[in-house]
Order: sequence, then C-alpha cells, then structure tokens
Amino acid sequence: MNKNTFAPRPPMGWNSYDYYDTTVNEEQVKQNADYMAAHLKSFGWEYVVVDIQWYASRPGTMRDKFQYIPFSHLEMDEYSRLLPDPERFPSSAGGRGFAPLAEYVHSLGLKFGIHIMRGIPRLAAHLHMAVQGTDAAADQIADPYSICGWNPDMYGVRNTPEGQAYYNSLLELYASWGVDFIKCDNICNTNNNMLFPSGAAPFAGKAEIEMLANAIQHCGRPMVLSLSPGPALIEQAWHYEKYANMWRVTDDFWDSWDLLKDMFRRCQIWQNHVSPGCYPDCDMLPMGRLGKGFGQERESRFTFEEQKTMMTLWCIFGSPLMLGAELTMLDEQTLSLLTNPRILSLLPFPARQLWLTENEAVWAAENPETGESYLAFFNLSDEERTLSLAWNELMDSMEKLPDQAPSSLLDLWSGQKLPLSGKKIAFRLPAHGCAAWKL
Amino acid sequence: MNKNTFAPRPPMGWNSYDYYDTTVNEEQVKQNADYMAAHLKSFGWEYVVVDIQWYASRPGTMRDKFQYIPFSHLEMDEYSRLLPDPERFPSSAGGRGFAPLAEYVHSLGLKFGIHIMRGIPRLAAHLHMAVQGTDAAADQIADPYSICGWNPDMYGVRNTPEGQAYYNSLLELYASWGVDFIKCDNICNTNNNMLFPSGAAPFAGKAEIEMLANAIQHCGRPMVLSLSPGPALIEQAWHYEKYANMWRVTDDFWDSWDLLKDMFRRCQIWQNHVSPGCYPDCDMLPMGRLGKGFGQERESRFTFEEQKTMMTLWCIFGSPLMLGAELTMLDEQTLSLLTNPRILSLLPFPARQLWLTENEAVWAAENPETGESYLAFFNLSDEERTLSLAWNELMDSMEKLPDQAPSSLLDLWSGQKLPLSGKKIAFRLPAHGCAAWKL
Amino acid sequence: MNKNTFAPRPPMGWNSYDYYDTTVNEEQVKQNADYMAAHLKSFGWEYVVVDIQWYASRPGTMRDKFQYIPFSHLEMDEYSRLLPDPERFPSSAGGRGFAPLAEYVHSLGLKFGIHIMRGIPRLAAHLHMAVQGTDAAADQIADPYSICGWNPDMYGVRNTPEGQAYYNSLLELYASWGVDFIKCDNICNTNNNMLFPSGAAPFAGKAEIEMLANAIQHCGRPMVLSLSPGPALIEQAWHYEKYANMWRVTDDFWDSWDLLKDMFRRCQIWQNHVSPGCYPDCDMLPMGRLGKGFGQERESRFTFEEQKTMMTLWCIFGSPLMLGAELTMLDEQTLSLLTNPRILSLLPFPARQLWLTENEAVWAAENPETGESYLAFFNLSDEERTLSLAWNELMDSMEKLPDQAPSSLLDLWSGQKLPLSGKKIAFRLPAHGCAAWKL
Amino acid sequence: MNKNTFAPRPPMGWNSYDYYDTTVNEEQVKQNADYMAAHLKSFGWEYVVVDIQWYASRPGTMRDKFQYIPFSHLEMDEYSRLLPDPERFPSSAGGRGFAPLAEYVHSLGLKFGIHIMRGIPRLAAHLHMAVQGTDAAADQIADPYSICGWNPDMYGVRNTPEGQAYYNSLLELYASWGVDFIKCDNICNTNNNMLFPSGAAPFAGKAEIEMLANAIQHCGRPMVLSLSPGPALIEQAWHYEKYANMWRVTDDFWDSWDLLKDMFRRCQIWQNHVSPGCYPDCDMLPMGRLGKGFGQERESRFTFEEQKTMMTLWCIFGSPLMLGAELTMLDEQTLSLLTNPRILSLLPFPARQLWLTENEAVWAAENPETGESYLAFFNLSDEERTLSLAWNELMDSMEKLPDQAPSSLLDLWSGQKLPLSGKKIAFRLPAHGCAAWKL
Repeated sequence: MNKNTFAPRPPMGWNSYDYYDTTVNEEQVKQNADYMAAHLKSFGWEYVVVDIQWYASRPGTMRDKFQYIPFSHLEMDEYSRLLPDPERFPSSAGGRGFAPLAEYVHSLGLKFGIHIMRGIPRLAAHLHMAVQGTDAAADQIADPYSICGWNPDMYGVRNTPEGQAYYNSLLELYASWGVDFIKCDNICNTNNNMLFPSGAAPFAGKAEIEMLANAIQHCGRPMVLSLSPGPALIEQAWHYEKYANMWRVTDDFWDSWDLLKDMFRRCQIWQNHVSPGCYPDCDMLPMGRLGKGFGQERESRFTFEEQKTMMTLWCIFGSPLMLGAELTMLDEQTLSLLTNPRILSLLPFPARQLWLTENEAVWAAENPETGESYLAFFNLSDEERTLSLAWNELMDSMEKLPDQAPSSLLDLWSGQKLPLSGKKIAFRLPAHGCAAWKL
Repeated sequence: MNKNTFAPRPPMGWNSYDYYDTTVNEEQVKQNADYMAAHLKSFGWEYVVVDIQWYASRPGTMRDKFQYIPFSHLEMDEYSRLLPDPERFPSSAGGRGFAPLAEYVHSLGLKFGIHIMRGIPRLAAHLHMAVQGTDAAADQIADPYSICGWNPDMYGVRNTPEGQAYYNSLLELYASWGVDFIKCDNICNTNNNMLFPSGAAPFAGKAEIEMLANAIQHCGRPMVLSLSPGPALIEQAWHYEKYANMWRVTDDFWDSWDLLKDMFRRCQIWQNHVSPGCYPDCDMLPMGRLGKGFGQERESRFTFEEQKTMMTLWCIFGSPLMLGAELTMLDEQTLSLLTNPRILSLLPFPARQLWLTENEAVWAAENPETGESYLAFFNLSDEERTLSLAWNELMDSMEKLPDQAPSSLLDLWSGQKLPLSGKKIAFRLPAHGCAAWKL
Repeated sequence: MNKNTFAPRPPMGWNSYDYYDTTVNEEQVKQNADYMAAHLKSFGWEYVVVDIQWYASRPGTMRDKFQYIPFSHLEMDEYSRLLPDPERFPSSAGGRGFAPLAEYVHSLGLKFGIHIMRGIPRLAAHLHMAVQGTDAAADQIADPYSICGWNPDMYGVRNTPEGQAYYNSLLELYASWGVDFIKCDNICNTNNNMLFPSGAAPFAGKAEIEMLANAIQHCGRPMVLSLSPGPALIEQAWHYEKYANMWRVTDDFWDSWDLLKDMFRRCQIWQNHVSPGCYPDCDMLPMGRLGKGFGQERESRFTFEEQKTMMTLWCIFGSPLMLGAELTMLDEQTLSLLTNPRILSLLPFPARQLWLTENEAVWAAENPETGESYLAFFNLSDEERTLSLAWNELMDSMEKLPDQAPSSLLDLWSGQKLPLSGKKIAFRLPAHGCAAWKL
Repeated sequence: MNKNTFAPRPPMGWNSYDYYDTTVNEEQVKQNADYMAAHLKSFGWEYVVVDIQWYASRPGTMRDKFQYIPFSHLEMDEYSRLLPDPERFPSSAGGRGFAPLAEYVHSLGLKFGIHIMRGIPRLAAHLHMAVQGTDAAADQIADPYSICGWNPDMYGVRNTPEGQAYYNSLLELYASWGVDFIKCDNICNTNNNMLFPSGAAPFAGKAEIEMLANAIQHCGRPMVLSLSPGPALIEQAWHYEKYANMWRVTDDFWDSWDLLKDMFRRCQIWQNHVSPGCYPDCDMLPMGRLGKGFGQERESRFTFEEQKTMMTLWCIFGSPLMLGAELTMLDEQTLSLLTNPRILSLLPFPARQLWLTENEAVWAAENPETGESYLAFFNLSDEERTLSLAWNELMDSMEKLPDQAPSSLLDLWSGQKLPLSGKKIAFRLPAHGCAAWKL
C-alpha cells in the first residue's frame, strides 16, 4: 500500500481534545458524529477522532493537580494493549473495544480515528505481561529510560523484532476495530521527554515512527498516520514525508492571537513540504465552544476576523483541518466559516508565501491542472492596514498567470466580484483580518 | 548537629564498585574490612562502603546487555524501602537489614557506608505501597517524570511534606542499622536524567539534597552525605557546601591517563572550595585489582608514576580518598602508595594551584597553624621534563614562607632530604610523574 | 527576470580554490579555461570561477601563519569596491577589472564567475570612502559588529537604502565586466561569525542575500548566485530557494572518506529541495591535482572507487559540479569520470533516497518526461558487501516503473547490459564503491 | 607586589557612567571629586573614575542611533595608545594625558581611576602604527577577529610577547599619569563578542586579563584592576581571584526592582568568593541623579526602601561601592544612605546567605576578630511581610554566637536598640524593604 493514497487531500474532521480534554465518552462522540453527518459531511468533513486517555479510569478527577493522574488504573488486555475504559465507552465491554463505536461512525458515512501514546504501558512492563506474537514479555520490550515528559502512562518500545511484534499486535487490534486514523503522540518531537546521553532528544521517536508505519502495512488496513506533538523538526521533513501522513508543526495550538500570528512563521518554513499524502499540520482549529474538560469552558477567544484569518491560512497552506469545538454547540456564524466551499477549495493546491513581515503576510496558490490562481492578504498588525501588490510582481512568482490583470477578482469569502482597476491589487483590511481571491 | 563536624577531614575508605560493580556480597565486604583493619586503618583509612544495587536480585547476570536489569526484582519492606538482597547478604534476613554487617565493621574500629539511588522504587509507586509516617501512598510521593538516565530502579520523590516523610523513614532505617556514610547517586548532577521543560536539568535533585540533609538531622545520627555523580555544578558550590559533605567533580573516574590529566582542570576550578566538612570529590582511586564485576578484571592500567601523581593530586587538593581495588589482592608497591604518612599528611591543608598548562601543574599548600609549606610538581607531558620555580615567585603566592630559600627540601615520597642550591627549585620528572616536598 | 532561468540545470564548472587557495593568477585561469574548452565543454562543463582574494596583494606569503593576511593591502576603486590585484591579473590594469579575462573566457564559449565576500572592505569604512549612488560614505554603510569569523577583509553592509546602493554599485560593476556567476562567501551560514545578542547567528547574512538578489535584478544581467559556506540551514530552505541558485550544504569539502560518507546524511536531509534553479550544493569535487596553494600539493586522497561514488552521488542527488583540480594536470582515468555521459545524464532528474544505513545508501531517480528510471547502490562500509532490493519494494517508491522487472539493466558507468534474473536486484560492491543503472 | 594589597577592602568611589554616559568632561570630574572630598571622603569613599570613551571626539552626538559612533575620531599617540579627548579634557593638551587631572584628584586626598576597553584601536591596526617596546606594528598585535560586540573602537591583542609589550606600554603610560584604578571593559565576560570556532566565547579575554595583571606588576605602580562587564563566570572564579581585584557579577545594573531582586541570586552564587583583594562586583549604585548622557535624566527609579535594600545587600555581601549619581545633585536623604557608618562597617566582613526564597532573603556576617555578629532581613515580596528566625537556627549557621539570645539588637540603619523578647527574631518589613542588626 502506498501510504500517500490513504489521504490524497488534507484530512478534515473533529477531535475531542479541545472541548473534552481526557474525559470524552461514547455518547458525546456519537453526538458529534451525528452533527458532522448532518451539517458538515457534505463539505468534506469526515474524521471523528477520540483523543487522549480513552483507556484511563476516571480521568480528569484530579484536574487541579494533574492532567494525567500518575499511576492510575488503565484498561488493558492480556497482551499489554490498552482498551477503552468500559465506564465511559460501554459498548466496548466484552472485549469489543472500539469496534461498535467505529461501526456507528461508519454507518454515518464518516471515518473513525483514535489517539495513542507512543509505547507500551508502564505497568505492563513492571508486571512482565505478555505480548502477542512473541515470547518476549513486556519488560523486554519496554525501555525504562524512554518516557514522555508530560504523560506518565507509557514506556517507549525498543527497536527490535519483539518491539515490532508489539506494534503489529496493536495495529492489528485497531484494524480489527475498524480504525481509519491514528494520531500518535509523544513521537513527532520528543524534546525534553527522552533520556539520551546528549540531553535534548527531539527525535527519539524516529524508530517507533518506522515501526508504526510498518505495522500499518503489516495489518493491511489503510490508516492515516498523524504524528504529535510539534514542533516537527524541519531537518526530518524527509522522514515524516516518507513514513507519515501528517505531522504537527506546532506545540498545542489554542485560541490566542500570538499563537496564530506565529503560525505564519511556521507555514513559511514548511511551505515547500505539502504534497498529496504529506501534510504539515497546524493543529486543531480552536473555534466555537472549547475547554470544558480543562475547567475553562468558553467560546473561542478568537475574534471573527481572526477565525477567518485562521481558516484562510490553514486552507491556502494545505494543513489538515480538525475541529476542536463541541460541534453540537456551533453557532451559525462559526458554522458559516466551516462550510464556505470557495475557501475550502483552496485546500489541495500547492501554495507559496510571497512575503511575511511583522505586519503582513501574502500567499498565492495555483491549481496546477486548470491554471486558476488564488491570492490571500493577511493583516498581521493591530491596526487597519492597506496591503497592495502590483500585477507584474505577482507574475514573477506565478507560472500560469496571464500577462494582463483581469478586470475583477472573485472574493472567496463573500463570493462576490471585486472590480480591479489598474495594475495593482490594493485592499484595506481590519486588524488581524484577511482577504482571499480567485484571480 | 553541624554537618561539617561529621567529616572534619576528607574521608578515607574503600568502596565496592570498581572491583565488584553491582555484585558484591557480605563475605567480600567483610574480607575487605578485615584487610583494612589490619593494614590500612592506622594510616587513617576507615570507611567501608557497599555500592550500588545491594537490594537487587541476581544483579550482573545480564551484564552483556545491561548493567542494571530493567524491571528486575528488588527487595523491599512494606514501607517502600529497599532492603539488602538476602541471597547475597544472608545476615540481613529476618528484617535485620545491614545492622549485622555494620556491627561487624564497627567491631573492627571502622565505619560503614552504603550507596542509595535518589528516589523511591518505581514498583512501589505502581503498586501504591505504603510510606511510613504519612497516609500518602508511594504513588503520591513518586514523580513519574523524574527518572535517572542510567538506572531504572527509582522515581524521584516530590518536594512535599509526604516526600520528606519518606526520606525521614529511610534515614531512620539506615540510622537504626548503624550506617555512617550515605553515598547518594543521581543527585549531584542529574543532567539528561530529569524531564524538565527546559530540557537539560542538571540540578533536578536540588530539593532531594535538602530533604536528605533534613532527614539526617531528623534521625539524629551523624552520617556523612556524599553526592554522585559528577561533574558537580560549580554554580551550585554554595549549595553543596551548605548541605553535603562531599560531591563528585567528575563523572565516573577510571584508570586512564586522559581522565587523570583532566582532573587537574577540575581541581583548578574547585580549588577554592575545600574546607572542613566540604570536599569536592575526585572519585575512587582506581589502583590495584579492578573490574571483575564489569567482566574486565585487571590490574590498574595506571603506571606506578601515574598512581603517584594521582595520590599526590588527591592529597594536596584535599579530595576524599576512596579505594576502588579489591583490597585483599593489593601488592606491596600499591600498598606503599596508600600508606605513606608524609603524602597523606597533605590531605587536610588548604592548597592552591600555582599554574596549569598543557604540560605542567604546580600546587602549593600551607599548614595554617604551623606555617609549614608544601610544594608539588606534576609533569603532564608525555616526555621527561624539568619543572622549575624561583623562590621569590613562590613567595608571591605563599603567606608564611621565609624570605630565604632553605638549604634543603624534604621529599615527601622518599622521606629524604633534597639539597637546594640557589634560589630556584628545579626538578626533572619522568613523563606523567610528580614530586612533592615540604619546604 | 526569473532567477530560476539563470541555471535551469545544476551548474558545472571549475573553481580555482582547491588547487590555488588564494593565489591564482590570470595565466593560470586562462590555462584552465583552455583545457575546459578543449576537453570538458562538450560534456556540459562551462563555468570558470576565480575564487577568494583576487583583490589581495601578495596573498599566501604568510601561509604558515595566516590563510588571509590581516590588514594587508587590498585593491579598491574610489567607490569602496574591490578590484583585481593588478600584479596577478595584469589585464585588469587601467580600471578594466575582470572585463578582459571574462571576454577571454567567453571567447571559448564558456562562462566566467568570481568569488566575493559578503560586505564592504573594512579599510573603506575606517577611511570614510565614497559609495556610488548615495551620499552616505562607507562608514555609514558598514556595520562594525558584522565581521566574518575567518576572513578579516570586510564588514557586513547595513540593511538600508544606502546599503542596497552599495550592492547595486557592486553588481553593476561586475555586470559591466561580463560576470556570469557570483559565489558569495560568509553568507549562507554565518555561524560564529556575526555578533548578535543571541550569540550564534547562523543566518546573519539573510538581508544581504536579499540585497544581492535585488542587485542582480537591478543590474539586469542574469548572474547565477551561489552562497557559501555551509552547512546551509534547512529551516531557511525556502529562503535560499526564493533568492539564490545554489547553497552549500556542507562546510568546505575535501578528499576524506569521512566527509564523503557524511555527505550521504546531508543529501538525505536536502533531497526534497532540488528543483530547476534551486540546488543544494555539495561543494567542489576534490579529484585530480589539489592543494598547491595550501602547501599540500598532492593527487586526491580519494581512491578511484571513492571518486566514482562521489560523482554518482553528486549526479543522482543533483548537486552543482565544480572541479577543484588543476585541470591541465588531469590524468586519463580521472578525466574519464568527468566525461561519462550516462552518469552526467542523471544530473537534472528528481531523485529520492530509498534508504541510508551505517553501511548502505540506495537512491532512485526518474525522468519525469520519459518515465525512465535509475537506481544507484552505494557500499558505505569498509568491506565488500552485497546490496539487494526486490523489484516490488522498488515499485512502492517509484511512480512510473513497470510491474515486471526487466531482463537486464544498463550499467551507467560501463555502458554494458547487466542481465537481471528473478525479481531482485542484488549486487556485490567493493568497499566505498557504488553502482548505477538505468532500469 | 601582591595585588591583594592594592585593595584590602572593597573599593568605594564614584564613576561617571550612570549620569554622563560617554560625555563627561574635566570640569565635571573635578566637581564630583570636590564634592566627594567635602562630603563623602570621611566615610571611606575615595575613587574618582572616568568611564568610557574619554578618548573619543564628540561622543554622544548621534545618541539616537549609536551609543558609540562607528569609525569616529579617537585621540591616539604615536604608539597606538588612546589619549584623552583634548576638547573635553583641556589639561591633557601637550601630551600630558590625565596627569594633571590625576594630580588634582590626588590633591584632594582621593584616588584616580580610568576605564579602558580591552585591546588596541582598530584604526591603529589598519594603519600599521607603531607599538612602544617592540618592532612589531599594530597590525601584528591586533587580532582582526577579536572584537567587542557593543563597542567598535578596538581589536583584541594577541597573546604574544609583542602583545604583552603593548599592554606594558599602556600601563606604563597610565602609571606615569598617576592612575590608581583601571576598569577594563569587554574582558570579564566576552560572550557574543569574540569569534571562536565554538561560537559563544565568554572568556575570550582570559589571556588579556593575565597580560594586564603582568603589565601592572611590570610598571611597578599598584593599580586596582576591575573587570567588566558581567556576568562573571563562576567557573573562572579562581582566575579572577588570582589576577584581578574586582569582577562584575552582572551585566549593567540599573534602577529597576527586577534587577535588584535578581542580584540576590547572584550574591547567593558568589557568596563564598569574597576575600581581601578579591571582590565580586554588583556594579554601580544607581541612586540620586542619573541618565543625563543617555537622554533620560531622572532621579533614581528606586524607592527609598529599595535603596536601603540595595545598600544593605552590597555592604553585607562585600561588593565594591561605586556611586553612579551626579554627586553635586545629591539630596540629603540619599546622602544619608551613603554616610551611615554602621551599615558601611559591614563591608569588610565575611557573610553567608541563610536562605533565599521567592519572597525572602536572610544574610548573616561575622567579624572574625571581635566575634561580633550581624544579621539582615530582606523582604523581596511586593507586600508587607514578617520575617522570622529562631535563635537556635541562627546558631547552627554562626560560629561565635552566644548560646543565649541577647535582650536587644542594635538596628544598624537607625542606630537604636531593638528589644528582643524570647528566642525568635521576628520583624515586619515593608515591600522591598530590609532591616539589619548587630546581634
């Protein structure tokens, strides 16, 4: 299987983390899936992803002290594989795992994804539990020095045939459940998390990325492989592109303008690394209702202009789009940002940054087949600002642009024609605002 | 108790590590203690220290793959405290711990020391075992992100009253055994070993140093506190000096000239930090028979000249002296290096480096009470070399030196008078050799 | 002008540095140009590049102490621009600069290039000399804190309109001479060389790269822009690709196997960054006669196998090819490596590394127009070794490969057919050796 | 000469920088000296120090762009030595240098000091000017890669006999003028300023510190050697102590609470490194009238409580005391802080920090001869706060304290007796405030 065929376009979907933190349950997942099927699916949204600690018992009950309760009970099978917490995911009882929930999601015409931590449960190693497909027990597969810096559940897996057997057994189980998407954490950038002689070891998960990719090939089910957390290492771009489908270019992204502004710098660096099946990932879109599991339930702190800017950047850059909101609480205005077909149409085309300064960003994209061209202006300053670009300068950067400026542009957000007079595109934008056109 | 009174002079003794690695047993400890009492005690040697993993079952049996077997069986009491492996230390059976062995050592007029790892056993945390003196169980005291980079046995202890209770319970147990000396590992420099947001965290053991010092005060028995491994952090010199008795200025030191030559650079940096009760520690003296537990049994690779150089530097600098050799196999020549009263007499006096170059080191010391002065020349080059120093230059560096050069010097190694003609001390030394005089 | 059109294929040529260091003169340049025209031009070799310090008086005369004599006399015009040393380049007398030499090179059907250092001569700043096109004098354009860490001639130029005026005046002068290729030094990676608050400042030349690119556009003559030294910064790949034609991915490369083996790691990282007009640069090919100006005149220390490996890697990766040898002394065997049309035909096609291990590297390339595919095996170990690859594995990595393995391969080095039996390509290679085939 | 005898107590004086920046002139220096003689001298204040760029022509005239004008005119003698700018220091005309001004200061019973930059003027090197006492010209002595990161005037001097000759000639000239105190800049910590292969080179001035110390010995006049800027490197403490009299433990210190609070951390680290002739230097005291030369003329931004805290810390720690204020504008309250004999009496005694937390610092000192003990409390928090200490805890840290707490303490700031009841010293302090007592 060529892994690039698993996701020929940037994946679009929903992820439970931004609203639920570690606490999401089966009913909540189903409700969000229902909403997606009813309101978003026709625009391309399709993945429903259950994020971290679905295997943990009573997560979130010590939220003032710990996001992840140390040494708490984790549901496991006899082969050292984590299973859904039956209290929160009742359909998983009787060893059925996520199969019933996946089936439900599939029945809606959607795809089902889960989060995993790199490694094998620590307790399995201490108790010398079995591993399917090998005589080696978990203590021989686990590396006691390979831990995550922010989650206490797992030990890294040794890069040995026995370690590969563990990952094979894991992905076989997930495939049997019908999983379509794996978000693996503590693997894209493991900085500060692994114990290597050289101290910082940001790519200590390298071999486990390869073992995961091998295990997906081995199990025979196409599953999108998504790597977290970022920032991904630009010097390993070739490696992510070879083994994974998407990799986070940022640490956790939240609803703060500073983080959003900084994303332009990240997209600058990664702009040459977007291609079918290979997506630098700007992280979940923190729009709508957020933060309940974190004890900070709120509407997104982003203004409407900032949300447009975010959607426009993610789309023209070509990032996967994953919604962080509780979907059932989406208001109309937010929903309109997620269902604009003209903006979403930017997603698959190669784009380039024309410039990035303290106050401005300008991007352009081309549909290589039709030759249609697109342009986006971003006002990164805290005041109204006019951005402008001469047609001949634009021509230096685009291959298929006609020699003459057209008489109008199509505004992608509004769908209206914008008359263009002269050889210069100039536009006044509100603070943190943007505009995007088909040329 | 003023901790500086626990060790008014640099401690001198024997440590099991360099010969036995993790494998030493009770009989072997006793034999070394017997030898020390018979042959070394009268020269000031007194500590008998059992080094790492005395609590581990069958250590060393996977020596080709691991120095410390991951997830192996460790002997523990009900309060999450490690106990001697009863297979290797039969007298510890029945909950007596090291008390019988300590009593034996004391009966010889010697002192008894043990090695510990910073922290609480990992398994105790995973099994939620009890801790004496607090209702909190081990899972609440252990920090799952605080691990050692090279030993898999422990988790660091949280800096809380419950954490202090654990250390108090530990030191009370050791005090009840009659322990005189605690060598705590993974605490002096924890670089690469702890998981902090900033990556390298060389002083992640800071709070545990303070908890250990508090626990010693709390238990009421004077116990020398020795911190490993190095290199100690010079910017924390004030902290080591406030809480500990000795701290390693180097990573593990072995019988290699490169390491020995490098020690001159370390002594240069730490020379102003030696005072009663406060000793920068140059590590064990790898002389005599070494390496059996490592599968590399051998005589020390140091030449006789290098061994003299090592002894002279350790003594004039003021480092603790800990023998790494299997004492019962000491030959006469090595023994003579350990029992030269004139060289050992340098140990307690403050000293200063006069210069250090690629090829030479020169140190001087003064007995502040008698005003007697001492001088040492070291040839760090790989060829014979003459070192020289004018009397008036020496006077610039010494406070109590007479204006006139004496007519002879006392050679500390040979005990013979060396006639001095003129105003210059000049001496030809073999490669890697040294000379030391009383002026 | 679209700078990518200046060099639609990786440039091929000769550079004076590896043989002459700082000392090359006009006659020597001409002789090498003559040789190239006679023996190499028909295979695509075309650039003749005069490397560093062509403006310096009596360079190399203190070679035991300095490669670049501090504060020595540099030839300058009234506008603070360096001119060729008239003693070594007699045709430059009378203010004609390199125009006569460029004309000679052009007359042979070849192209002419020069090396420059980033910045403006230090002495011009201290003497407040004039700058063409602005009232600001050199002291206002030079940044006294922006110096090169290994060459004392220049100060960096401030990123101001006056600074741009200086670079414009410089490139206008070079264009008037007929220069086709600019190798700018101390600009691709300025690590340790610039004085920034943050210490290491590897990309302190960023603005000057942009000023150079602007100045080339301003002068109107297509000149290839080559940036040195490396290692280029992978996180700035997008910037090099936007402004320059080639950028060094390594510090100076010389005839040592360790450096050549390391180049595979560099090519791994940069493999996704080769496209028309954009070339990661593996540096000059140290084959043939080398080192005279360095006082180390010699034949290349590379074995014949290693030279084949180097040529094969440079060609399949797509690096520029610049000969370091004194061309007039090339022997037949070395010449044969430079004139193999089948190997050189790999140069323009996109390629990917299939794997890189301690002992092996395997690369594949495709001609996107014809669909022809190429494969190269490299034995990086120090012993004979068989590399092998199954046809179906190869198919996973190539897009246009037929389903069935062919019955033979074309050996690119020998031009002979190699029968292929079964579905596996397996080949035994000498230590450090390689093989390359058209599939 | 033993350099420790040059300054047996921490030097106290005035420095022109904090008020005048680069612009001070002869008349202003004299007025400050007059004031010191009249009002401060009897309390121990004695040094009058002319700070940076006394040799520069029209400094400060481009203050909006540059603190130090690049490539500006510097007054020099024929031997590449900087001389006072005759426009600002008229008495220096006719080659008399600072001799007349030094004589004036001496006539008041005070001592005279000057600031120098490490190195030799850049222009002298470019013009190949002469150096006294050697045939080598300045271009052979200057290192073109050794520059300061924030001042463009000098090149570092090579560590050669010719380089030593330059420093000897410099110190001979200063000695002939009657200089008593040399503050050398860009030498204590040269981080980011020197160009070494390893990038950061914070101790690139090491050899020049030794050359300066040698040159002072060579010239035969005791001159206090003060090293700037900080932060001094704790691992080089032994080196500063061997060659210099004072070394800055901080970058430039100004009137900001954050900087003052941070100084407690610096004093913590350096507390074991204060001894006669050896002083870690907390930098000038920014009290009174400041900032004119910087275009920010103002009264110190420190509150009165903060100024007391600063004076108390500097005195109990043992830092040199250098006034930054324009002395002639001192108000009575500020003057009272500088002339409290009880607080100033703390200056020469060894002290130790008892603790430092986010909110508190406590220090204690002893007069080793009389056994008198001192205690200081500092409230580092932003609110009123009670600090307390039990007498028996204090006894653990002090050697000569009586067993019984006295019935009263002497308040050092007020001179009044403070009754002490019970065994605990407890005191309520205002935010950022302090108290100090003789016990």
